[in-house]
Amino acid sequence: MTNISIITIGDELLIGQVIDTNSAWMAQELNKAGFWVNRHLAIGDGRNDILKALDEESGKADIILVTGGLGPTADDITKPVLCEYFNTSLVINEEALKNVKNIFINILHRPLTQRNLKQAEVPASCQVIQNKRGTAPGMLFEKNGKIYISMPGVPHEMKGMMTESVIPYLQNRFGMNFISHRTLLTAGVGESTLADHIQDFEASLPPEIKLAYLPNYGMVRLRLTANSNHAGTLESQLDQLFSDLKSRVNEWIVTDEDISLQEVLGKLLIARKQTLSTAESCTGGYVAQIITSIPGSSAYYRGSVIAYDNDIKKKILGVNPAILSTVGAVSEETVRAMVSGVIKITGTDFAIATSGIMGPGGGSKEKPVGTVWIAAGSTHEIVTQKLWFRFDRQRNIELTAVNVLNLLRRLIISGPSENRPA
Amino acid sequence: MTNISIITIGDELLIGQVIDTNSAWMAQELNKAGFWVNRHLAIGDGRNDILKALDEESGKADIILVTGGLGPTADDITKPVLCEYFNTSLVINEEALKNVKNIFINILHRPLTQRNLKQAEVPASCQVIQNKRGTAPGMLFEKNGKIYISMPGVPHEMKGMMTESVIPYLQNRFGMNFISHRTLLTAGVGESTLADHIQDFEASLPPEIKLAYLPNYGMVRLRLTANSNHAGTLESQLDQLFSDLKSRVNEWIVTDEDISLQEVLGKLLIARKQTLSTAESCTGGYVAQIITSIPGSSAYYRGSVIAYDNDIKKKILGVNPAILSTVGAVSEETVRAMVSGVIKITGTDFAIATSGIMGPGGGSKEKPVGTVWIAAGSTHEIVTQKLWFRFDRQRNIELTAVNVLNLLRRLIISGPSENRPA
Repeated sequence: MTNISIITIGDELLIGQVIDTNSAWMAQELNKAGFWVNRHLAIGDGRNDILKALDEESGKADIILVTGGLGPTADDITKPVLCEYFNTSLVINEEALKNVKNIFINILHRPLTQRNLKQAEVPASCQVIQNKRGTAPGMLFEKNGKIYISMPGVPHEMKGMMTESVIPYLQNRFGMNFISHRTLLTAGVGESTLADHIQDFEASLPPEIKLAYLPNYGMVRLRLTANSNHAGTLESQLDQLFSDLKSRVNEWIVTDEDISLQEVLGKLLIARKQTLSTAESCTGGYVAQIITSIPGSSAYYRGSVIAYDNDIKKKILGVNPAILSTVGAVSEETVRAMVSGVIKITGTDFAIATSGIMGPGGGSKEKPVGTVWIAAGSTHEIVTQKLWFRFDRQRNIELTAVNVLNLLRRLIISGPSENRPA
Repeated sequence: MTNISIITIGDELLIGQVIDTNSAWMAQELNKAGFWVNRHLAIGDGRNDILKALDEESGKADIILVTGGLGPTADDITKPVLCEYFNTSLVINEEALKNVKNIFINILHRPLTQRNLKQAEVPASCQVIQNKRGTAPGMLFEKNGKIYISMPGVPHEMKGMMTESVIPYLQNRFGMNFISHRTLLTAGVGESTLADHIQDFEASLPPEIKLAYLPNYGMVRLRLTANSNHAGTLESQLDQLFSDLKSRVNEWIVTDEDISLQEVLGKLLIARKQTLSTAESCTGGYVAQIITSIPGSSAYYRGSVIAYDNDIKKKILGVNPAILSTVGAVSEETVRAMVSGVIKITGTDFAIATSGIMGPGGGSKEKPVGTVWIAAGSTHEIVTQKLWFRFDRQRNIELTAVNVLNLLRRLIISGPSENRPA
């Protein structure tokens, strides 16, 4: 199988000022295209570090993909170091120059400096990959049978270049291995309970098919991956094993597609032509934001009232002031009233609500940091749940969001309460 | 200076299902504590890959920090591989066992399986670092003068272990280098224009002080870093250079602290004892979410109406239906009305509003994907701006948020309009 190393260059990665999201995206796309990423390596903007990394990674992989360090400023040294490594020198590339001029003159309407023009310089021996989204061109080199491709670190520029040029080139050049995945998402069960439950299934898997446990946000994704150099009966074998796996963990399955919980909920609502609104206190917009991050969510999502302040809970959502003054904002009564209130003013079929103490401050003996009430419901029925998380603010917010979305999903699929077994 | 390599283990990283946020956090904290992270390496759950990485990284660094692969399932093989590398075998650690039992019996109320009990096993030759937040203990090894520390990959468990045990241990063991940073944030200027502007400043920097350009979300952060093995006059020298740098880029400075734009805005509002609400359409809660991600934001942030649907714009925010039917939701008139409306119902001093087409669908010839109107204002004055982004949905949302927060920041610091120069 064709192996790939990804090298990301930039001091900002090494000091942690920027989180590397490029590697994950690249690996996902390469994986789908039949390539296996062996290693991701992040290094700083240092000549020796870059030279050494190019040398070492080419001993471990067939393809070395490099991102970053192509900006116009003095700390970006990838281009001269590539010249040194491939024993060549910089020349102006006419098409890249046209692109730089077009961006500055026609799009940015900014003065074009000498520094910007240098963006059109490339090592003489490389094959240039034009950048349709920015000024830094991509560069492809070949040395001792290995392929090296250097791309800008700006995510949308790198993504465009990968999708339109790099992946098609690699597929054409190397042919493809057969990689196939089946993924399901579970909720309400821990990784080790799941593992005990499917121990014999896991032990009986053929060597070319692997099972992975991917815990995330209080849910566990299970993924079967088949990896082979011939297609044969791989897909049907994978389907059969996946169906076996599903029947074993059926009680915890949220979805058998590789999609997020909010996408599962969106699909449910679209199929039923129903709508959703949200009323958030402690999650402060996070629930709305993950719902609306899905393109097309406007088909079922109407909007939200973020009632961070109790006055908003009263005035806009109509929460009875007596509830707030007796049992307080973090209570079952409040989240129930928030659900009813937001359905009333937005006219949706369903709504969800959150109220809690996310930390680090704000806790008390009765309601320690991490105490959360969530509710989901319609005009007919509202279900609630009390949660208690012992994590940091961000993780408490994320877990609350996952739990409230899942609460509504379970309510919807369980059907009207009068039809449910007691 | 003491060098560190970080190795993160897990197939989920290599196939890009999970973004590695641990390395960035670790690097930030280690950096503050005076250590330099040389390399981050991500590898899969494979015996050979782990053994090779331990061997190679110990040739490049004094300290090797490892995260991941310590879960209870069959794909987690870090512990047996560590035994192999350090030529030792697994034994039960009594304190870790007590911890595992406590978590399952007293906290999770889940049955304790053989698999869970194995979490208390550690290589006999290691120094155990107890895990106060989960079942997998940390492990510290020493070999040929190099330190190896293995930690769980679950972020909050790793973070707790690093803060309470690992960093204090390393500081005590290695002493500290003197690293110091000064950071400022600019907006409204590109990286290369900035670089031209401060070319001579950059060229005149002493070798122990470095300047980095960190572009992010349409803003550029400039960071001066001093790195020395003696304190001396480093801090005062750094202060002087930073003050020089600030005076050169003064017109674009958002803040001279290493904080986010929403924290800058929060500080401004706290100082003036003023409040903020938001009315979001296209950003769908993202603006509210980044505001409320800051602990203590409830001191100035009241809440939001997310008017994803036009009905909500009319009914809750009071946007005149005639505006929506003539110029449409993505218009200057609509965002003005959204600001006025949300101030009216929340009673805040200031509000911001967004309305646009984030893509991938929904564009037209007059209003192509990426067209956005933003507004910021008070009951006295509202300012608006039209934006056009050519990126993907997520980046369009993020850039809209940054621009609308900055629009309000500029309005607040410019003071009442009658006092401004024409």
